[in-house]
Amino acid sequence: MKLLEDKIQADGVAIGTDILKVDMFLNHQLDVNLLDEMGKEFYRLFKDCGATKVVTIESSGIAMAVFAAKYLQLPALFAKKSKHKNVGDDVYSANSYSFTHGREYTMVVSKKYLNSDDKILIIDDFMAGGNACNALLDIIEQAGARVVGIGIGIEKGFQPGGDSLRQKGYNIRSLAIVESMNDGKITFRNDDC
Amino acid sequence: MKLLEDKIQADGVAIGTDILKVDMFLNHQLDVNLLDEMGKEFYRLFKDCGATKVVTIESSGIAMAVFAAKYLQLPALFAKKSKHKNVGDDVYSANSYSFTHGREYTMVVSKKYLNSDDKILIIDDFMAGGNACNALLDIIEQAGARVVGIGIGIEKGFQPGGDSLRQKGYNIRSLAIVESMNDGKITFRNDDC
Repeated sequence: MKLLEDKIQADGVAIGTDILKVDMFLNHQLDVNLLDEMGKEFYRLFKDCGATKVVTIESSGIAMAVFAAKYLQLPALFAKKSKHKNVGDDVYSANSYSFTHGREYTMVVSKKYLNSDDKILIIDDFMAGGNACNALLDIIEQAGARVVGIGIGIEKGFQPGGDSLRQKGYNIRSLAIVESMNDGKITFRNDDC
Repeated sequence: MKLLEDKIQADGVAIGTDILKVDMFLNHQLDVNLLDEMGKEFYRLFKDCGATKVVTIESSGIAMAVFAAKYLQLPALFAKKSKHKNVGDDVYSANSYSFTHGREYTMVVSKKYLNSDDKILIIDDFMAGGNACNALLDIIEQAGARVVGIGIGIEKGFQPGGDSLRQKGYNIRSLAIVESMNDGKITFRNDDC
């Protein structure tokens, strides 16, 4: 998505070969017009996949997920991150590790809001190693629901998360795939998005 | 706002005289059409207050804040909750206590995204004792910015947060003010919103 790639080039900050800071417009301060356009693009990409619910992960996935859900006219749901491993019987849970925060956490979703009839479109802001997405996939599997699409804002193509999910057959589409970062220069993978 | 009050009556769950669960549509699963209408209502209430930025608190404030910011055509910003008291020099921070989670946390906002020229519209999903809002007001004051409005989704009118801010002269508007809860019966305060 050229609009997002242009924004990353203009306002993103690449640090070394691995860290991309986009807190100017995507995960602290929020450019709502850009997020709305990203929601519209997710609609274009996933409108025919039969989803019944959009599921994201707090906190920075929420903004793009609600714009996508508005275009798709679906309910949205965000998985919560808990520090407690003992989370009770009324939630599905899975453990994950956040490299950003350098700690383990437990992802939880109320059993009330996922069931075996659901066809899930996952939307999240970032895909790197894929830890968070894999925890969410685990939760969706526990509910017996089906994943019909995975929409990512920015994928780090040089980390294994996205390609690993593609190899497993998931319908994953990323609006911008960063192929490499070097000396502040950001290169995108050519994609048909 | 009748639409929100009707939704609370239909899908909210009042437990005892104090706990109101709205995770069906507002802070876990998200009714995006309702949230969009709430954003539109915040636009109507605050469009003439001269705000330059919408500021909310992760996680459940984000969805209504981005819809409001879209209507207002303003950038949004969400304050983050950190477990660490040592948060560095590049952020404004304030300590708060979450009764929902039974723990203290530190609220942080990057100094890059708040400055003394900013006129802030605070948007948040809930107002009860006012702890979270007061921490955010502290942060905004540290930045030398001015608060021109406070928009709340659901206020617990039987707790002191909202009325205390009204007495201090803040332009606070709540889309639904729960006056009392008793045996599952929810009563709203009459309001000109």
